[in-house]
Amino acid sequence: MIAPLAITMGEPAGIGGEITLKAWRDHRHDLPTFFIIDSAERLAHLATKLNWTIPICPIDTPAQAHDAFQDALPVLDHPVTAGQVGVLSKHTGKSVISSIERAVKLVQSGEASAVVTNPIHKNALHNDGFSFPGHTEFLANLAGISTPPIMMLACDDLRVVPLTIHISLQQAINQLSEELIVEKCLITARSLTERTGIKNPRLALAGLNPHAGENGDMGREEIDIITPAIKRLQALGIDAIGPLPPDTMFHKEARAAYDVAMCMYHDQGLIPIKTLAFDLGVNVTLGLPFIRTSPDHGTALDIAGSGIASENSLCAAIKMAGDMAKRQEDTSK
Amino acid sequence: MIAPLAITMGEPAGIGGEITLKAWRDHRHDLPTFFIIDSAERLAHLATKLNWTIPICPIDTPAQAHDAFQDALPVLDHPVTAGQVGVLSKHTGKSVISSIERAVKLVQSGEASAVVTNPIHKNALHNDGFSFPGHTEFLANLAGISTPPIMMLACDDLRVVPLTIHISLQQAINQLSEELIVEKCLITARSLTERTGIKNPRLALAGLNPHAGENGDMGREEIDIITPAIKRLQALGIDAIGPLPPDTMFHKEARAAYDVAMCMYHDQGLIPIKTLAFDLGVNVTLGLPFIRTSPDHGTALDIAGSGIASENSLCAAIKMAGDMAKRQEDTSK
Repeated sequence: MIAPLAITMGEPAGIGGEITLKAWRDHRHDLPTFFIIDSAERLAHLATKLNWTIPICPIDTPAQAHDAFQDALPVLDHPVTAGQVGVLSKHTGKSVISSIERAVKLVQSGEASAVVTNPIHKNALHNDGFSFPGHTEFLANLAGISTPPIMMLACDDLRVVPLTIHISLQQAINQLSEELIVEKCLITARSLTERTGIKNPRLALAGLNPHAGENGDMGREEIDIITPAIKRLQALGIDAIGPLPPDTMFHKEARAAYDVAMCMYHDQGLIPIKTLAFDLGVNVTLGLPFIRTSPDHGTALDIAGSGIASENSLCAAIKMAGDMAKRQEDTSK
Repeated sequence: MIAPLAITMGEPAGIGGEITLKAWRDHRHDLPTFFIIDSAERLAHLATKLNWTIPICPIDTPAQAHDAFQDALPVLDHPVTAGQVGVLSKHTGKSVISSIERAVKLVQSGEASAVVTNPIHKNALHNDGFSFPGHTEFLANLAGISTPPIMMLACDDLRVVPLTIHISLQQAINQLSEELIVEKCLITARSLTERTGIKNPRLALAGLNPHAGENGDMGREEIDIITPAIKRLQALGIDAIGPLPPDTMFHKEARAAYDVAMCMYHDQGLIPIKTLAFDLGVNVTLGLPFIRTSPDHGTALDIAGSGIASENSLCAAIKMAGDMAKRQEDTSK
């Protein structure tokens, strides 16, 4: 049996609490055992306010979640100054950060089998010295790794890895290099095997330009950068194909030819997956020494507290993390 | 009753002939009357080779297509030197070009109600002085208009207009300007009303950068170029919204908020539509003084002659052109 999954508090002014409550209430029979690192008082208050009858079971150790899980939402109590739902507060950042730190410690010690993070809001963390571009970089720092981890988005139909993420399109073009492609593809291939069991993952590399440049007529990055990278990867034994015309590589038939699409910039990967599976996408971090997934959405401050936020992506993230943990356990036997 | 639709020969080494034969054989009961400007001998030979029983009816004038259409494929004979299917020939370019010229003349005279073009292959036309970047520019030249027409891709679920098309991604960024956006949006809005009857089309402008730049954190084009363009459009009475985060504007719920997505570069528009409707997309040219649609694929030389090419996109193009012609006729009454 895998250890319970640790879910972080996320931004308390956002939807993290309510989607976790909903995930437990409506989906616990189909999900692996999880617990949330959050304020038990805050969650109980939130449930009451939403008129949801959800028993909460404070636990002292993750292991206690197993017995509690089917009857109540296990909460590893983590106090936070109550703020107003929907409004960022200056007083909650420390708790948000330490909830993530606690989750990482628990997964490192083996008490938790994976970390599933609720969305954070960087603006609320600035006062507390949070100097990372995002969640993922913070986790990498906690894990003590120097190679930046990789964001993969996955749904039932498609996995995509954008080579760069939160930079302008111009910067994404500027940063594109043979080195970057080879590095990210190697980590992706290795991690995909480790996390999903696919033995020789088939990587499909997108072109950067329309029609993948059409032999240099519409841009030379395919010739100068991407094709040489593919040749190096193939020489290293990686099953890499491309550069493929970006617009024709994401329909159903085309997707069957690969396990993951390596995308040259953020939207090249995020447009197709969010078009296909808007609220079922999962953000998976590859290249960390532990399993981490998260829902593929933000804090949604505008609808927080109303109870209407969909728990689907969080459920998919919990399920995927559980599957990966199960696999990790099976292979370590 | 609308005049018959003129279908051009397209590249004879490609799939144009066989998909037109199939469209007539399997879909004529659901399509408006059309005729093809092509060699009757070539088409008869192609049908025989494919073992398809398809009667062909040579016609002298488009009007004769009406009577013939349910019993045989009407062909306005247009000789072409027979080449090998799948292999580009130096001897067919003149016929390909003049087939397009003839279609335009017929639509200008009112004998045809719309032009539906089969795919051409530029390399086969170079010897014959074809100096246009593509089909659309050639049609604009024949129509005698100086403002470049606009490529719109449309399926049942989505319409997209990329602001630029067959240039590198870097050039697309370089060419992005307030002027370009305003010009293309004005033509799109006007033409959409004219061709589809939507009174005040809702235009959704995508951002260029991830998350539409997130207030300038990931690129400034949204602030410096796109937002000012939207303000100008709104001042001109256009229902324009945006800039929207590109990755979250193409799922079903988001699509309901607009009639056409104005995309900042080729793949931003083509990735979502080809992901959603790979072989049902139609290429519609806006800004021409006549109706022109085409299937949203190329000559497919690799599978030409085998009969396996899908006629779906051509049928969708014929149907859409017919609907537009019907509307044009209704409004001119």
